[in-house]
This record gives sequence, structure tokens and C-alpha cells, in this order.
Amino acid sequence: MSPSYQPIAFEDKLSRFTDQWAPRVIAEMNDNQFKLVKIEGEFVWHTHHDTDEAFIVLAGEMAIEFRDGQVTLKSGEMFVVPKGVEHRPYAALVCSVLVVEPRGVVNTGDVGGAMTADNDMWV
Amino acid sequence: MSPSYQPIAFEDKLSRFTDQWAPRVIAEMNDNQFKLVKIEGEFVWHTHHDTDEAFIVLAGEMAIEFRDGQVTLKSGEMFVVPKGVEHRPYAALVCSVLVVEPRGVVNTGDVGGAMTADNDMWV
Repeated sequence: MSPSYQPIAFEDKLSRFTDQWAPRVIAEMNDNQFKLVKIEGEFVWHTHHDTDEAFIVLAGEMAIEFRDGQVTLKSGEMFVVPKGVEHRPYAALVCSVLVVEPRGVVNTGDVGGAMTADNDMWV
Repeated sequence: MSPSYQPIAFEDKLSRFTDQWAPRVIAEMNDNQFKLVKIEGEFVWHTHHDTDEAFIVLAGEMAIEFRDGQVTLKSGEMFVVPKGVEHRPYAALVCSVLVVEPRGVVNTGDVGGAMTADNDMWV
């Protein structure tokens, strides 16, 4: 019997959860993970000291604030936060984002706290 | 003066080139690259022995053929070809794809030939 190769559909995966700031892994490429996350409101300032972090907006609009500026991302736009750069994601309205980063990265980076999500949750 | 943080917009980047099967780097995350590529028709069978390769379809539809099956990807869908698995991308009509893979990966993998594109072309 041949294996069944199935596409990973963002809309389908996004329909399976509603909680915000709680990334869900949908795929891995080598040691990296592709994670869907729904965000709304203001996250915490944090830093990933050991890795870059890529944000791809799938629906809605978000900002990534830095201590000296910010970038606004709409659907079909991406940005890579360089490692070591303090940042704070923000979305006025709910926004769906594909995050790409190494396996094991915690969403709140170096600061922890109440918004820290479980790691390696798949959907 | 504050730095200027600019989003990377897929549509804008795609508008800057027309050649097919010629990936353009738009961003890097650690040692990985995000590449836009326009494809149409049939590529060559090839294998990447040392790395997985992620395909995210941005517009249009493509198939990835395997020796024992295939997967069809539409806009908003992705698939990761595991390392060592022989595959052949195909698109009946022009299709825009975001490929994520480590820096230095050659599009034709182990086989080379006329469809081998220059590596590390940025747009």
C-alpha cells in the first residue's frame, strides 16, 4: 500500500483551537518547527538570546515592537527578529501567525511569566 | 536615529522577478533561508540527502510527486519533504511557493543538470 501524503492546511489547523498566545506545532523541518499562533492584545517584552524568530502573518495584522521602533505586518508579510533583540508582539484584533523557529523555543523567551505557553503542543 | 524596520512582503518580492525554478532568498532565520520561487511544468527527480525541505504555497497549486504517491498543495497549504526522499515538484500553471531550507541547499539536490539554479540569489 502506498503511503498517504497529506497537505498541511493552515485554515484547517487554525480551526482546531481558539486560545491565544498558545503556539501549536504543525510541522518540523530538521530541528525547526512551524507553529500557528493566534494573538490579540499585547504580549510581554522578551528576548531569545540563542535564536532568530520568523513571523509570517496569515490573517489580520500585527506589530512587533522594539525598544527603538516597530514593524507592522499584514497578511502575506514576514519579519525575522534577530537573536538577542528584545521585542514585544502586539495585535489590536485577533491575528493568525505562522512562527518558524528551532524546536524548544519558549514563547516568552528569557522572561517567563503568566503568558508562557506549553511547548511542543501539536495540532 | 532609530532603525527602520521593514516588513518583507511576498507580493512585492514576487513582482521583482519572472524566471521560473530560480529561487530568490528573501530572509534568513539562523542558518535557514526563506526563498520565493515561481514554478510551472515539471521539475527533475532529485533528493536532498542532508536536509528536509519545506514548501508553502502562496498562490496557485502544485504537486510534489514521490515514487510511491504524491501530495497536492494549494494556497495556504504546506508540506515538508523529509531528507533522503526522492521527489519531483510539478505545477500545471504558474505557482508561487515559499521554500524554507538550510542555507546552501541547491534546488536540484543530488542530480544537478540544466535546471540547477544559482544559489543564494536575493531579491
